[in-house]
Amino acid sequence: MNKAPQALKGFRDFLPSEKRQREFVARKIRETFELFGFEPLETPTLEYAELLLGKYGKEADKLVYTFEDKGGRKIGLRYDQTVPTARVLAQYQNELPKFFRRYQIQNVFRAEKPQKGRFREFAQCDIDIFGTQSEIADAEILAATYFAYKNVGFKNPRLVMNSRKVLFDALKDYENDKVSVNSIIQTIDKLDKKSEDEVLKELESKGVERASEALGVIKNSKPDKNLQNILDILEKYGIPKEDYDFNPLIARGLDYYTGMIFEVRIPGYDTGSVGGGGRYDNLIKDLSGVDIPAVGMAFGFDRTVEAAVEAGLIDESGSAATVLVTLFSEEYLTDTLGVLRALREKNISAEIYPEVDKIGKQIKYADKKGIPFVAIIGEEEVKQSKITLKELASGESKLVSKEQLLTILR
Amino acid sequence: MNKAPQALKGFRDFLPSEKRQREFVARKIRETFELFGFEPLETPTLEYAELLLGKYGKEADKLVYTFEDKGGRKIGLRYDQTVPTARVLAQYQNELPKFFRRYQIQNVFRAEKPQKGRFREFAQCDIDIFGTQSEIADAEILAATYFAYKNVGFKNPRLVMNSRKVLFDALKDYENDKVSVNSIIQTIDKLDKKSEDEVLKELESKGVERASEALGVIKNSKPDKNLQNILDILEKYGIPKEDYDFNPLIARGLDYYTGMIFEVRIPGYDTGSVGGGGRYDNLIKDLSGVDIPAVGMAFGFDRTVEAAVEAGLIDESGSAATVLVTLFSEEYLTDTLGVLRALREKNISAEIYPEVDKIGKQIKYADKKGIPFVAIIGEEEVKQSKITLKELASGESKLVSKEQLLTILR
Repeated sequence: MNKAPQALKGFRDFLPSEKRQREFVARKIRETFELFGFEPLETPTLEYAELLLGKYGKEADKLVYTFEDKGGRKIGLRYDQTVPTARVLAQYQNELPKFFRRYQIQNVFRAEKPQKGRFREFAQCDIDIFGTQSEIADAEILAATYFAYKNVGFKNPRLVMNSRKVLFDALKDYENDKVSVNSIIQTIDKLDKKSEDEVLKELESKGVERASEALGVIKNSKPDKNLQNILDILEKYGIPKEDYDFNPLIARGLDYYTGMIFEVRIPGYDTGSVGGGGRYDNLIKDLSGVDIPAVGMAFGFDRTVEAAVEAGLIDESGSAATVLVTLFSEEYLTDTLGVLRALREKNISAEIYPEVDKIGKQIKYADKKGIPFVAIIGEEEVKQSKITLKELASGESKLVSKEQLLTILR
Repeated sequence: MNKAPQALKGFRDFLPSEKRQREFVARKIRETFELFGFEPLETPTLEYAELLLGKYGKEADKLVYTFEDKGGRKIGLRYDQTVPTARVLAQYQNELPKFFRRYQIQNVFRAEKPQKGRFREFAQCDIDIFGTQSEIADAEILAATYFAYKNVGFKNPRLVMNSRKVLFDALKDYENDKVSVNSIIQTIDKLDKKSEDEVLKELESKGVERASEALGVIKNSKPDKNLQNILDILEKYGIPKEDYDFNPLIARGLDYYTGMIFEVRIPGYDTGSVGGGGRYDNLIKDLSGVDIPAVGMAFGFDRTVEAAVEAGLIDESGSAATVLVTLFSEEYLTDTLGVLRALREKNISAEIYPEVDKIGKQIKYADKKGIPFVAIIGEEEVKQSKITLKELASGESKLVSKEQLLTILR
């Protein structure tokens, strides 16, 4: 090979510093899910194509990676986590608890043309409660979402809520032969990216008569009893009032929602909502044949990581190791490895420079890698049973005992 | 759909209790990797087929999932983590540190026919140090491996070591037109599964003359200077002498090893080695064109989890939540949610039963799910501002204040 091999377009490598950021966010989110009693689920990357294509209709073949395996089976790569979970709900219906609260953090695949900020493989992070229409379940999803974002470090994540039922009822009168309520909703959903004028034009071009009246009706709509109950329950979770609100213009693109819908926004992060979801009581039946109501949400994982990095919530110090133990000479290997071992025994992450080299070069290596401290064990140090500890940020060095070293670095 | 949809053969769903076991092992292993200064890497699931097939030669097409994407590109699913990492080493050679220590825990795919204990998708968990031929790097891999297994909870993981160079030198004289040294090594590698007689027969059928002499020579071989140095260094890591040893019959199947090779065995777990690796100084050049020496290992993740479960190292109590908060009546929702919120604020994982139902049914739900405690807030409890806490294992109940509840469950 003459040219270095490359990753496929639309796919990403996550080198350590970026991967570490992602792991931080995933860990924080997972902590909150577990605190709320959600349980982990993993499903295969590949499924029968029939299952994957069922949901997305005619458009699906363009969106889903499908192919024939060596045995002639039509298979494909997971497009989302809802479809495989619907299969799990049907396949294991006698094993799963009555109320199945699961979380799932796995990559999904889109065969679409990659665009700026849109990839062919990306992480999705879902929580759902299956098996109940209780408004408490809606509130649990909203609260788990809110506190997950808080746990990542966001000061004021905002839940913006609406009801698909309210939208539907308000728009029923504007449906006609040319345009369905769902199609009207899909256009209204663009209000956070487009101006009101543009949305009105799109509605008109779709065939909506009295488009501006329709928009006015929606703007003046109020929560129905169901949504009001959820709002009332949510208050008891200790979420500050200013962090959640009814917004009649939130529509969520997907057809399948049947009740409460919501989006999560991070003040100061303007790319768009960082997650969203709602109640979908018919979808699992449509997908798998078992009649199970559901409420859930999906974190936009890439956006959440981006927003967290922008807000300075992730320490990017950039290295797994706290300290690099240098190797001055083979002669001092026993002392050097003694220090390395003592550090790790005290749970201090440590790397050893594996070759004898100029100390300046070893320090440069640590610096480039973002390792904050260097422990030097040279002739003088061995003679005195001490270690020179250099802090790279300040440039300061001091001669310390092994015990002092462990105390300082812990 | 009349029949419940199924997962593809050779693929697995991990329901919560099993997924939790896997997360436990992954977390423990990851902790040790980080302690040793290894850094996380993630690569895409899909790569150019050319890259994936390059390494495995003619047999590859049967082993690797390959297909054409919508744009006519020949692509495929990751077969291992070494090939994508080789690509990363070439693609980012100016960005990566001189010594690149990375770990990677991702699923890999095999298009082979699934057999008992062999799946088409399974997790691999690799650590490697790239960029040095230092024997310290070999020792670092061995020590990180050992302590990772210790961190999972295994009392005496055993490192069984050999040298590919020693094997090669000892067997050179037995190579002939019909059989290569690598082919002889592949047969000898079966000694842990087959009897000596069977191995001798296989060697003879491959065309090895004096097969029994060859085996005798290997049995009497000694570590070369390189392996002896690694053994000497390893001693300084604080690994008990009885937990590592030279074994001249360990061969490791793969062609590409060039120096030290090793396997990890768990006493009492007889399915086979739970992991293994070694030095491979030529492979990265073969794969990617950049000349980078390497030493590393791969955890057999499924086997490691199985061995850990068998050894009773994983608490299988079976639920994310420590306590189920029951819902006696809508009337008490405020009190009920107050308790739920207080528990979670103290970091006690809690689930709420989302519907009003008979208390007996709610307790049964908790029991079935493996939730150890139930908190009951009924009429009497609300009146007294108390909670009845029931421990399901003992069946005991007591009336406690909110503060007492938090103290007991923490």
